[in-house]
Amino acid sequence: MSYQKLVCELKRFHHLNSALDLLGWDEQVNLSRKSAESRAAQSAALADLIHRESIHPQIGSWLNALEQDSLTAAQQCVVTEARRDYDRAVNIPSEFVARRAKQQSQAYHAWVDARNNDDFTAFAPFLKRQIELAREEAAFFDLNDLQAYDYHIDKNDPGMTAAVIGILFDALKDEVVPLVKQILDSTVKPDLSMFKGFSITKQETFLNRVTRTLGFDFDRGRIDVAVHPFCSGNGADTRLTTRYFADNPLDSLFSAIHETGHGLYEQGLPLEHLGTGLGTAAGMSVHESQSRLWENQVGRSRSFWDYWEPLYREAFPDQLSGVTSEQLYLAINAVSRNPIRVDSDEVTYNLHIILRFELEKSLFSGELNIEDLPTAWNDSAEKILGVRPVNDSQGVLQDVHWATGAFGYFPSYSLGNMLAAQLWYAALDEIPGMESDFSTGDFTRLLNWLREKVHRQGRRYGLMELAKEATGHELSCDALIRYLKERYLPLYRPQAS
Amino acid sequence: MSYQKLVCELKRFHHLNSALDLLGWDEQVNLSRKSAESRAAQSAALADLIHRESIHPQIGSWLNALEQDSLTAAQQCVVTEARRDYDRAVNIPSEFVARRAKQQSQAYHAWVDARNNDDFTAFAPFLKRQIELAREEAAFFDLNDLQAYDYHIDKNDPGMTAAVIGILFDALKDEVVPLVKQILDSTVKPDLSMFKGFSITKQETFLNRVTRTLGFDFDRGRIDVAVHPFCSGNGADTRLTTRYFADNPLDSLFSAIHETGHGLYEQGLPLEHLGTGLGTAAGMSVHESQSRLWENQVGRSRSFWDYWEPLYREAFPDQLSGVTSEQLYLAINAVSRNPIRVDSDEVTYNLHIILRFELEKSLFSGELNIEDLPTAWNDSAEKILGVRPVNDSQGVLQDVHWATGAFGYFPSYSLGNMLAAQLWYAALDEIPGMESDFSTGDFTRLLNWLREKVHRQGRRYGLMELAKEATGHELSCDALIRYLKERYLPLYRPQAS
Repeated sequence: MSYQKLVCELKRFHHLNSALDLLGWDEQVNLSRKSAESRAAQSAALADLIHRESIHPQIGSWLNALEQDSLTAAQQCVVTEARRDYDRAVNIPSEFVARRAKQQSQAYHAWVDARNNDDFTAFAPFLKRQIELAREEAAFFDLNDLQAYDYHIDKNDPGMTAAVIGILFDALKDEVVPLVKQILDSTVKPDLSMFKGFSITKQETFLNRVTRTLGFDFDRGRIDVAVHPFCSGNGADTRLTTRYFADNPLDSLFSAIHETGHGLYEQGLPLEHLGTGLGTAAGMSVHESQSRLWENQVGRSRSFWDYWEPLYREAFPDQLSGVTSEQLYLAINAVSRNPIRVDSDEVTYNLHIILRFELEKSLFSGELNIEDLPTAWNDSAEKILGVRPVNDSQGVLQDVHWATGAFGYFPSYSLGNMLAAQLWYAALDEIPGMESDFSTGDFTRLLNWLREKVHRQGRRYGLMELAKEATGHELSCDALIRYLKERYLPLYRPQAS
Repeated sequence: MSYQKLVCELKRFHHLNSALDLLGWDEQVNLSRKSAESRAAQSAALADLIHRESIHPQIGSWLNALEQDSLTAAQQCVVTEARRDYDRAVNIPSEFVARRAKQQSQAYHAWVDARNNDDFTAFAPFLKRQIELAREEAAFFDLNDLQAYDYHIDKNDPGMTAAVIGILFDALKDEVVPLVKQILDSTVKPDLSMFKGFSITKQETFLNRVTRTLGFDFDRGRIDVAVHPFCSGNGADTRLTTRYFADNPLDSLFSAIHETGHGLYEQGLPLEHLGTGLGTAAGMSVHESQSRLWENQVGRSRSFWDYWEPLYREAFPDQLSGVTSEQLYLAINAVSRNPIRVDSDEVTYNLHIILRFELEKSLFSGELNIEDLPTAWNDSAEKILGVRPVNDSQGVLQDVHWATGAFGYFPSYSLGNMLAAQLWYAALDEIPGMESDFSTGDFTRLLNWLREKVHRQGRRYGLMELAKEATGHELSCDALIRYLKERYLPLYRPQAS
């Protein structure tokens, strides 16, 4: 009885939270300039109301009772997740939530100004306060400052710790740094000059066709335009966004494929379990594995372009005339040293993440002071990425995450890359001729495989367990390294002419 | 103190209700086919939560205390409106609200089927239940069946009664019926054959320009496409919709101008008072007066078209070549006998409303049985409109209102027409050369006048008081009749050739 009541209440929260999500989606897609203040008030009022509902002692009683019962594995997953959410809601005081929201808003605006003015000193006190808030939050769970970073990692990926990530990332760094050097030392250089004057309307048509062909269900979702692409909503109503640049069509296309990957995951979660652990994504890293797999392993593959290249040429005949298939494919897989994470290719991207992870860890442990952060960033960038930012706007001020208190979030991008590569090879093993399907525009077998191995599992497994269950191997950087080498080394190997 | 607390709470409800509104807007503008069920659950969960908040006894205590205080007129307006909403929320049980929502949904679907199948008998029991629900609702306020219709009228227009409407509509009918005959007996016949193949993109551009020029603030609102045009949101974020037909461009254009009128009213309500009676529209009729005034008195005037005709010809040169200004203007003001309300012109429209009002009144008084409704409808249509519907789909089944329990709503359309005409002549009197402004594309002085006389007043006055305050005259059909005669009779007077 308690179980049914709990599920019913969780579904009610899900509907209310989905309404709150829609306010956020609309804010980024539709909202007029002067309506922002009113939207902020709406979101705050609704969030506060949902929070008050979610701490009702009745829920605690149901959980206490259920935790004494013998439950099926599925029920256990639901109860564990509900307990996690309930304890968060109860332990973190409303006063703190409101104060954090206010200080995050202040820090966000301070960050925008600081980045515009290339003035880290102006931002430093705000960043310091964000770290203090992050520690204060962990303290509500009786965690000390040394445990605070793990607490924030766990928020994104249940069960993950900085120690485990450290081991994984050290191995990754050891392999990627020389690989990048090898690629960039090559005499083979991609030419991106073809990407000029791509009609936005035609990009839109092409990209909608790609998204639909990959399996996104437009009967339960849509795709719109936003400044920063994102995926919101859930499987019952999935909202993707992308953006268009006439002179950077690959940005639009791969952003859309990336968000489609997120959307396919949401649409693959079991609808009947939405709102419970059984219908919730396993965590940020697993989510990112889905977006990355479709964007990179699939979207940058030869077999993918076997099918799409003729259609791309049909849409943009003038721009692509005189460009060979080989030149186009190399441009799609261009690698370069870029100080900016979001403009980076999939090889160097991981180095950006390792850099941030190491700095976050040092900030939380107290080994690194805020004042010393810009220099530490630049030194690390020079060492790991091979490029020293010319100023802080191109360095420590480039990302919004820390300004909004999102600590322990960056690692999930590279953890997701590792899982994506691991899933890719497992799928290749288990689906004979999968890439031949791609060459004919058929992605069904891969999607169905992911549905079974990942999507339908909901939150039954954490990242590490899911990697093992789905691929038969512990999570490691091996598959990612293998993939990067197999894809990029032949491409950058000078051809005998 | 109580007053400040009450206002603060009302604003919170306003934000929550605005969130609920957005769910509704998104449902009609964006929602994918298979996401409807999830949206219904979101809206129901949020509506229920807002309802539970709005019946908190603390609000009742504040109101009781404030009603003993001496208040300013403005405070009195806020308290009166809050009392009205609070009593509704408290007196109407949640069980009834949920049951009504369910039965309205059933009745809506039954109506869709019945209209498609031209089968009133299948719909009759659902309609009967809607009337019973309407009576049941009135009974929560100790009103008997005879008072129930007034209760529903009052929901749309505070203070208005069927008796007052009856007097106004009898006078209106006596004048409009012969006027329609006079117009339709004319040998002057509009030619609508020019309206073919109007590019949707160009319609959109033209219509956005019109909307902006009339004064709609796109920094606090937007215009989208929906199957049935509507205006939602509020002055902080006003959402208009229209629709496009290549072969019926006037439908798109006048729908947009109509909704712009609603939007200008919302944007003219004092922002700082949103959520209280001082920032709420005076009622449905006053709202309709604003949409009708811009659509008809302004949008169908010669002075309006003096300015827009050259721009319209520029957008659609092929379609309008060979069409004289006089022919275009006559087409814009075409009058015809049409059994369908929503396809009717502004002259015959009022007769549709009178017909519905008289039938609603008889249904509520018990003089008319549901079974006899189709015949009564057709007889009345023949008598008043001069056209007998060929079937019930073209007759009693044409409108959705009754299926959704919207009784006492139809009259506001014609009450709005009366007020619109009365405001029009008052503005013409008080703003010398107003129509000359229109000829140059300047609508500012009329908008400012309406801002002062209507928009800024919020809910300080009911319909009857507002008419008196704004125009100096009691509400009557005189101005509307004068307007219809002045506009249509010269147009339909055969010219000496």
